[in-house]
Amino acid sequence: MDTMENRTEISSLGEFGLIEHLTNNIELQNASSIVGVGDDAAVIDHFGKQTVITTDLLIEGVHFDLMYTPLKHLGYKSVIVNLSDIYAMNATPTQITMSVGISNRFSLEAIDEFYEGVYAACEKYGVDLIGGDTASSQKGFIISVTAIGEVTPEKFVKRSTAQKGDLLCVSGDLGAAYVGLLFLEREKKIFVENPSIQPDLEGEAYVVGRLLKPEARKNIIEFLEGQSITPTAMMDISDGLSSEILHICKQSNLGCILYEDKIPVAEDTKNAAFKFEIDPTACALSGGEDYELLFTIPQSDYNKIVLSEEISVIGYMTDAAEGAKIITKGNNTYPITAQGWDALKK
Amino acid sequence: MDTMENRTEISSLGEFGLIEHLTNNIELQNASSIVGVGDDAAVIDHFGKQTVITTDLLIEGVHFDLMYTPLKHLGYKSVIVNLSDIYAMNATPTQITMSVGISNRFSLEAIDEFYEGVYAACEKYGVDLIGGDTASSQKGFIISVTAIGEVTPEKFVKRSTAQKGDLLCVSGDLGAAYVGLLFLEREKKIFVENPSIQPDLEGEAYVVGRLLKPEARKNIIEFLEGQSITPTAMMDISDGLSSEILHICKQSNLGCILYEDKIPVAEDTKNAAFKFEIDPTACALSGGEDYELLFTIPQSDYNKIVLSEEISVIGYMTDAAEGAKIITKGNNTYPITAQGWDALKK
Repeated sequence: MDTMENRTEISSLGEFGLIEHLTNNIELQNASSIVGVGDDAAVIDHFGKQTVITTDLLIEGVHFDLMYTPLKHLGYKSVIVNLSDIYAMNATPTQITMSVGISNRFSLEAIDEFYEGVYAACEKYGVDLIGGDTASSQKGFIISVTAIGEVTPEKFVKRSTAQKGDLLCVSGDLGAAYVGLLFLEREKKIFVENPSIQPDLEGEAYVVGRLLKPEARKNIIEFLEGQSITPTAMMDISDGLSSEILHICKQSNLGCILYEDKIPVAEDTKNAAFKFEIDPTACALSGGEDYELLFTIPQSDYNKIVLSEEISVIGYMTDAAEGAKIITKGNNTYPITAQGWDALKK
Repeated sequence: MDTMENRTEISSLGEFGLIEHLTNNIELQNASSIVGVGDDAAVIDHFGKQTVITTDLLIEGVHFDLMYTPLKHLGYKSVIVNLSDIYAMNATPTQITMSVGISNRFSLEAIDEFYEGVYAACEKYGVDLIGGDTASSQKGFIISVTAIGEVTPEKFVKRSTAQKGDLLCVSGDLGAAYVGLLFLEREKKIFVENPSIQPDLEGEAYVVGRLLKPEARKNIIEFLEGQSITPTAMMDISDGLSSEILHICKQSNLGCILYEDKIPVAEDTKNAAFKFEIDPTACALSGGEDYELLFTIPQSDYNKIVLSEEISVIGYMTDAAEGAKIITKGNNTYPITAQGWDALKK
């Protein structure tokens, strides 16, 4: 790999040289990007639309492990997870800012790989990189992304506006990224104990891919718009289905019924979960990092979504007094509890 | 101090509990803040104005030293440095997002102190905290701020639009923060060698204050607007006057003449610099962290600024071929060189 053969020290460029190197090929694509990289701040004009903003801080050793995360994938994913939040507001992403903290462990070639992924995501989703910051870090790689989007006034969709009786829907399938993580953690452990053993991920391309190279659900937002559906509430699934459903219930002051047998889980995910002797449903409920969309729609919109293979109806909203409940495949009813990833819990 | 007596572990709240704790008193002040903390993303409507965005990543041990930086001041300053970039575009800040990475070394009380400073800056400058992220860090304190502002279309001021013959102006006085840093570093060294010796910062309140609790130049932007002056180019001074002047020259494709004897340096800064046997002019040229505004105006606007005690004319813009030059007090002419802070240089 070039990364190993050629090593250019970042210090040889200096901060301004590095920024110039990383940003000199940018061509702004969006009419809303008025001023991009190279001034005190960027300028945006959404021309009568509202502006949507979200931000994420990703820290090596906490949010990602560079032992099994290629830097290009990391750059791609760090953009995607923020775009996912913009789509979850029923908005269209238009710009990002990207800040990185880099220790001297990283070469310029390594940073270039990371930015290759960043720009690949920008190109695929039609967003402009308009600013950011580069800093040295004492230890590890630090990423801070802010994504900016636009939405027609009042068309944004919050978490707090689901209505009693609404159908609870989810895009795609769930739990794959978590099982992918289990595989990569297992192979890492084996490798650390015996570096001569090569990783065995045969057959796990789907689950590993869902973890390392997620996509944001632009196509679902476009589908809903094409069907003239405005969800009553929506959010993306980053912490596991249980946790997200409870957010919508709490913020909308409602309860819900969730049917276990309606939760979409891919065959590859089920097979992979069985290898670890874990329940695929548990992966969907508590795994996280799916970046699918969870949303509610009026029952009257059911006919508009029933033919979509990408959308599953998994339950419906009830009164708050009835609580948030799951009905299992064995027809037992339990309260939904959030066991999702909680970064600050020991 | 309470911080020492009561120690609440952040892990006892969990991530969502922490966010709730830190944000539950927010009352949005700006009509442009449509949706704040608590959803996938925030929503802003600048109602026909353009949106200005800047971001900074601040890392413990690189950008700040908690041995002599009170957390409340750090929270305040981390907002201010971003607002300064918004003002430097001739815009008005309206919102911020604040992300923090925290190791388990920090108690909830410590984080509360930090956010006290954040909210104090928000209140003073009339901006709303509308989002952010909390993450655990393996080591040290990490801060990522994005500031958002608004500006009447086309009224923003870039670095690249200075004109030949324009007056080069600066607000306030320069070099103080750098001398303040020298004092704090000296006292830290003494303390580390002998913890029984208490810091001796007598008489250095001004320079230390400029480092630890800077302000953003809202009043200068308001003054310029009141005088119907739109600077031809503007930026804030974070890396030292030399470095910033060279940015304006390069991006505007011009040269300049800078008069050393016109560079504003406070008496307190001069006295403090002499104690370290360093040239106060060098502190102004290369020190940085002043967060004053550097801007150019047509000569015809001279009469409008001459009576302001807060604005100094320090030179004028020339052809690019003449280069960027400083004329010293001894009447010698030298090229201006950037020796400012460069985070990634060894």
